[in-house]
Formats: sequence, C-alpha cells, structure tokens
Amino acid sequence: MPAPMLVTFAAGSTGAWKIDQIASVVGAGLPAADRLAMIEGAIPSSAPAILSAKWALRGVTSNLRYTHHTERAGMEAIQEGLARPTATRAALIPIRKNEAWWNLAQDQRRAIFEETSRHIAIGKAYLPAIARRLHHCRDLGGEPFDFLTWFEYAPQDAEAFERLVRELRVTQEWRYVEREVDVRLSR
Amino acid sequence: MPAPMLVTFAAGSTGAWKIDQIASVVGAGLPAADRLAMIEGAIPSSAPAILSAKWALRGVTSNLRYTHHTERAGMEAIQEGLARPTATRAALIPIRKNEAWWNLAQDQRRAIFEETSRHIAIGKAYLPAIARRLHHCRDLGGEPFDFLTWFEYAPQDAEAFERLVRELRVTQEWRYVEREVDVRLSR
Repeated sequence: MPAPMLVTFAAGSTGAWKIDQIASVVGAGLPAADRLAMIEGAIPSSAPAILSAKWALRGVTSNLRYTHHTERAGMEAIQEGLARPTATRAALIPIRKNEAWWNLAQDQRRAIFEETSRHIAIGKAYLPAIARRLHHCRDLGGEPFDFLTWFEYAPQDAEAFERLVRELRVTQEWRYVEREVDVRLSR
Repeated sequence: MPAPMLVTFAAGSTGAWKIDQIASVVGAGLPAADRLAMIEGAIPSSAPAILSAKWALRGVTSNLRYTHHTERAGMEAIQEGLARPTATRAALIPIRKNEAWWNLAQDQRRAIFEETSRHIAIGKAYLPAIARRLHHCRDLGGEPFDFLTWFEYAPQDAEAFERLVRELRVTQEWRYVEREVDVRLSR
C-alpha cells in the first residue's frame, strides 16, 4: 500500500488525454471539454491548470476499504499498473452514493459490495486487460462525488470494458448510486 | 450518519478548553500551549485562529470503518453526545499507525481491531460516561497523524477514562501505533 496520494482530474484545453465523450449515467453530467490532465500530488487551487479548467475533480488513493487479503492477493498476482504504452483508452467514472449507503454499517456495505454484488470478482475477471485506480473524495470536503474510478485499457479491450461497466451497473450495489458520469478518453 | 465534517483542533492562547497537560506516549510530542479551540466546519488556513496557533490538527468525521451494525446499534442505544454541561474534562489523542497496519487488508485490520483487541467492546463498556468522536486525517494530506480521537467526560469519571486508555494501549492493535500524543483538557 503506497501512502495516500491526492490526484486532480482537470478538464479543459490541455492534458495528455483527449476527451471523446462525457455521458451522464445518473443525475447531473459534467460540462464538455477537449482534454483531461491527471495531476498526481498536491497542487494549489490557484494553479493555472486548475484555474483554467472547465471542471476539476479531486480524489485520494487510499487503503482498500472492503477487500479481504485473499481477494487482494488474487488480484495483485495478475493486475498491471497504469501507463502501459498499449493502454491508449481510458475512462473516468465519478460516482456519488446516496445517504442510505453511507448509513449502512461496515459489514452491511461489505455484504452488498461483494457477497451480493460481486464487485471485486467482476473487476478481477477483467484483469489484467482493464487496469484501474480508485480515488476517494467523500472526506475531502466540497467535492461533488464520493469516488473517482480511473480505468486504462487497449483499444482491443474496449468491448470487454463495456461488459465490465454493464455488469457493475446492474448490481444491487449500484442501486445506491445517486450520481454517475462516464467520461471516455483516448491518447 | 451525518455528512463528513472537517474539524480543526487549534492550540494557542484562545479556545474554550484549557490545556492541562500534553504527554508524548509514543514518538514526538506536541508543543505546549495554554488553550485549545475545536473548530467545526471548513476554515481557511489563513484564518487568525490557525495562523496564531502553536499547532493545529485537522480531521474529518466520517463513516465507521470497522463497526458492524449490531455493534453500532448497541452503542447508539446508550451513548451520549458531545457538549454535555457536566462533561468538563476532555482528552484529544492523536495517533499515527505504522505502514504494517496500512498494508493489512480490511478483514485483517478488522480482526485485529475487534476480534483480537476488542476496541469496540472496550469503548462500549465506558458508555455513556465517556463520550467520543473520531476524526480521520490520513487521507487529508500533510497531516502528521492518522486519527484524532476526542473524548469528553465528567470529573468523577476521570479514573474510568484512565482505565479505558490503559486497556486500549495494551491491545495487539496498539502495537501498530507509531506515534501517540495525549492532550488533557478542562473547562
């Protein structure tokens, strides 16, 4: 587990990723923009990249909140990191869950997350093709989402990614999602 | 579960609480100061109360990370809130856990936290006398601790509070604590 790292996703006219589409899945969407920059590490809100952005979302990589050690070991054995040269497609999926979710205790959230919805198992089935990093925002204050999930994959795995997203969106866990935006990117 | 709330503990020359003692339990302590202000809600780092402080620690109230719903219900049935007029004693105990703790998966941390160390059960045994609020700081960035726990109790429960703290500090969970400071207060 590396130490928590702040990551800012700034959408505007600069950035390594071209924004191909922004779709609202549940609730309000996000404004259109041409490019997206993923900025790792602390950055002042007065930085030009933030000030000039159409929108900027912040999240923190952190310890896993639900994954058991056998599940983590199973994923770590096969997963690959971000920034693979072949991974020229990406998706940023910001999500906010509703009050009912956050009112659940840890064992209830875990049961819905995995025993019922198989969130970990579904994600694992698409490893190593679909690389993924989760960013937490609920505790940062002032952020419109609870989580930002970032995915990277090669063009030939684009259909697999669509299946992954579809599988997750029909789970019981997703009934607690009150806002979801789907940003697709390429480079 | 209320929404996450930022809380700043600013030690200096103002604040509702008189600082009676600052003790280093493990690792570096904190500078001496006369009074402590507990500021609930967002506050700019340029605010006078922060700029003039000897030290300021920030944390966020958040969802419980380990407590099961039956455990939570058992506590909610008997616990009392902060700011009781009779609770004129308080303690602020900032803690940082080591890398080995954060490298554990969720099920391993839960097992040490409760099945082995009985953290929830120990705390519950002192309800409603010792009221308590936990603040998370690990994901905020730049904070020297992982957690700030705030306790409030009446003078006649001071001995009970010493027992509570002693019981927790001999648990297996506490072997993962690499820095702990114990700030005692009164009003």
